[in-house]
Amino acid sequence: MRVLILGGDGYLGWPTAMYFAARGHEVRTIDNYLRRTLAQQTQSEALMPNPNLPDRAAIFRSVSDLDITVDIGDVADYRTLSRIFQEFQPEAVIHYAEQPSGPYSMIGYDEARLTLNNNLNTTFNVIWAVLEHAPDCQIVKIGTMGEYGTPNIDIEEGWLEVEHKGRKQKFLYPRQAGSLYHTTKVLDTDLLWFYVRTFGIRVTDLMQGPVYGLSTEEADLDERLLPNFHYDDIFGTVVNRFLVQAVAGVPLTVYGKGGQVRGYLNLIDTMQCVYLAATKPAGRGELRILNQFTETFTVNELAEKVREAGKEVGLDVQVKSIDNPRKEPEEHYYNPAHSGLLELGLQPHYMTTEVLVGMLEKVMRYKDQIDTRKIMPRVRWK
Amino acid sequence: MRVLILGGDGYLGWPTAMYFAARGHEVRTIDNYLRRTLAQQTQSEALMPNPNLPDRAAIFRSVSDLDITVDIGDVADYRTLSRIFQEFQPEAVIHYAEQPSGPYSMIGYDEARLTLNNNLNTTFNVIWAVLEHAPDCQIVKIGTMGEYGTPNIDIEEGWLEVEHKGRKQKFLYPRQAGSLYHTTKVLDTDLLWFYVRTFGIRVTDLMQGPVYGLSTEEADLDERLLPNFHYDDIFGTVVNRFLVQAVAGVPLTVYGKGGQVRGYLNLIDTMQCVYLAATKPAGRGELRILNQFTETFTVNELAEKVREAGKEVGLDVQVKSIDNPRKEPEEHYYNPAHSGLLELGLQPHYMTTEVLVGMLEKVMRYKDQIDTRKIMPRVRWK
Repeated sequence: MRVLILGGDGYLGWPTAMYFAARGHEVRTIDNYLRRTLAQQTQSEALMPNPNLPDRAAIFRSVSDLDITVDIGDVADYRTLSRIFQEFQPEAVIHYAEQPSGPYSMIGYDEARLTLNNNLNTTFNVIWAVLEHAPDCQIVKIGTMGEYGTPNIDIEEGWLEVEHKGRKQKFLYPRQAGSLYHTTKVLDTDLLWFYVRTFGIRVTDLMQGPVYGLSTEEADLDERLLPNFHYDDIFGTVVNRFLVQAVAGVPLTVYGKGGQVRGYLNLIDTMQCVYLAATKPAGRGELRILNQFTETFTVNELAEKVREAGKEVGLDVQVKSIDNPRKEPEEHYYNPAHSGLLELGLQPHYMTTEVLVGMLEKVMRYKDQIDTRKIMPRVRWK
Repeated sequence: MRVLILGGDGYLGWPTAMYFAARGHEVRTIDNYLRRTLAQQTQSEALMPNPNLPDRAAIFRSVSDLDITVDIGDVADYRTLSRIFQEFQPEAVIHYAEQPSGPYSMIGYDEARLTLNNNLNTTFNVIWAVLEHAPDCQIVKIGTMGEYGTPNIDIEEGWLEVEHKGRKQKFLYPRQAGSLYHTTKVLDTDLLWFYVRTFGIRVTDLMQGPVYGLSTEEADLDERLLPNFHYDDIFGTVVNRFLVQAVAGVPLTVYGKGGQVRGYLNLIDTMQCVYLAATKPAGRGELRILNQFTETFTVNELAEKVREAGKEVGLDVQVKSIDNPRKEPEEHYYNPAHSGLLELGLQPHYMTTEVLVGMLEKVMRYKDQIDTRKIMPRVRWK
């Protein structure tokens, strides 16, 4: 299968490119280094060095004999995306080409506008490239569980059957997200749903929880193939940040009461989910929405897991509640469905002490690179 | 009250500017003539000539002794909008600065992208100008009943209390619109709702049905003060189009079966609704959503009304069903609530034969200007 990966330089994009290549698919990827640029601008560089994308493709080729074709360019530029679609004729396009940080989107006007325009225009361009150049190509889009927010009723997978005054209607599950970044994903979903029902394109929208992990079969082939690993308050996801804090000997920063529940998944499971979505495609005119996580914890439970794992490797991990920089409920009902991907064949890798210990050991090798100034919240929702 | 009207050159914007000025408010307005430009590009010019905005303000001043300050500029350009907010310190901002045509947004990539970017960025800029320069200023935003689409359950005013598995949650009423233009209004609502609940701004979002009419107290002072009146398939609303077809002696073009129900209102009532929204403002942190129409008809009923009115002025009006260029249900359930604006004090002006006759008489004076090539659908949802 010809698979086009948009945002191939990212934490998920790069491992995904290797994952598909390793399974015999023809992979082409494009990235404009937006996340790298923004991370540098906000002093949020990743922990380990990441070679540029063509260099990583060359390293991967040297250890695996597999090709990944790289384009450096902007998916929000339709001329670029059209050219690649016409040349490559993808059968599946995996869309990661978005500004991925909630805190970044809440810094101020410029950051919010960049996030809105980048994320909407990349999604819009993907839709149109499919419509104009590859109408049977399926779109696999990464949404977020954050689109749903934390409603007081069960979160279903994408859709909700509403009974109202004796009549029934199935709707997109109503969404209300906690940051502008998460809101752009809500807008993406609205946009995709319009074009799916009007023009019959094929879309799987994956509502993903926070991802953790440093290891995939392919990334483990060479240290330089590691996914980029941000541990700061802006681009770092919570588990990765906690692990670095544990290694750095600073307290894990729990925001507020720490009762916030989220659905987490291992990077290896993201690979599986995206692969399942692409190889078991949505039908024509179908917007298939799947909730992508394997288990739920409160932030306090997560901190406790990291503390336990720390003990195993001789780290005395402290946990400290700090003033919540975000505007979010710190205790709430949360019961999201997540059976769709299991039914497609997902084999979950849970967050065991062993998994966390493996990550801690990897991070410990880079202990000298940790810059603890990047850990405390620098962006407030105000 | 200092009232800033965005999109002051438009069918609603210009009458609104005069309406507020006539009631003693300080009015400033901005427009970049986007609709005029697009209408010209698509050969969809209005029926009557409309002087440019400064000229109209001068004419209005000469007949009323009232001032309307005019800026020519782009609301999507934040520098421009910021400057005006800082100078004028508006207490209410009425946001009409959007690409307003469904068919235009469905022509192709360029038109769709322009609609998406213009409408999202103007709304985004209004939000930020309020946040940064006038946090207590209320936003009155024109949405559309088209945001809801035609669900099989009653349409409530903006919100829906959902009971699901024994628990309850109030959500934004789920939306699914019929064109990209209407979808941008859905995205606007999502965006406004995020910033309202996160930063406590004050917003009234008016879900408006198709408007008809040529007459307001102020527009009637001088023929050159008429609102711009489009009758083509792209920028013309259905009632206006039918009236021009009646006068031109061409059949009224009913799309498909004609069972499509919509909620309509008279231009005079739009003025009232916007005025009520601005002078009886939403509270801090409130997104007040009101459904803005006074009565519902099917397209067939509407055609019949125009036929009846035509008889009164000696026109033999024909009605012809044509292949529907849009993708929409032609027969459907439709029961939208609309009590909110009545409770605020709206005095409805219904679509009587007398009202339609008045419009027909006005259109008949411009009969020679009618270009019947502009009437048949030129844009298809395909």
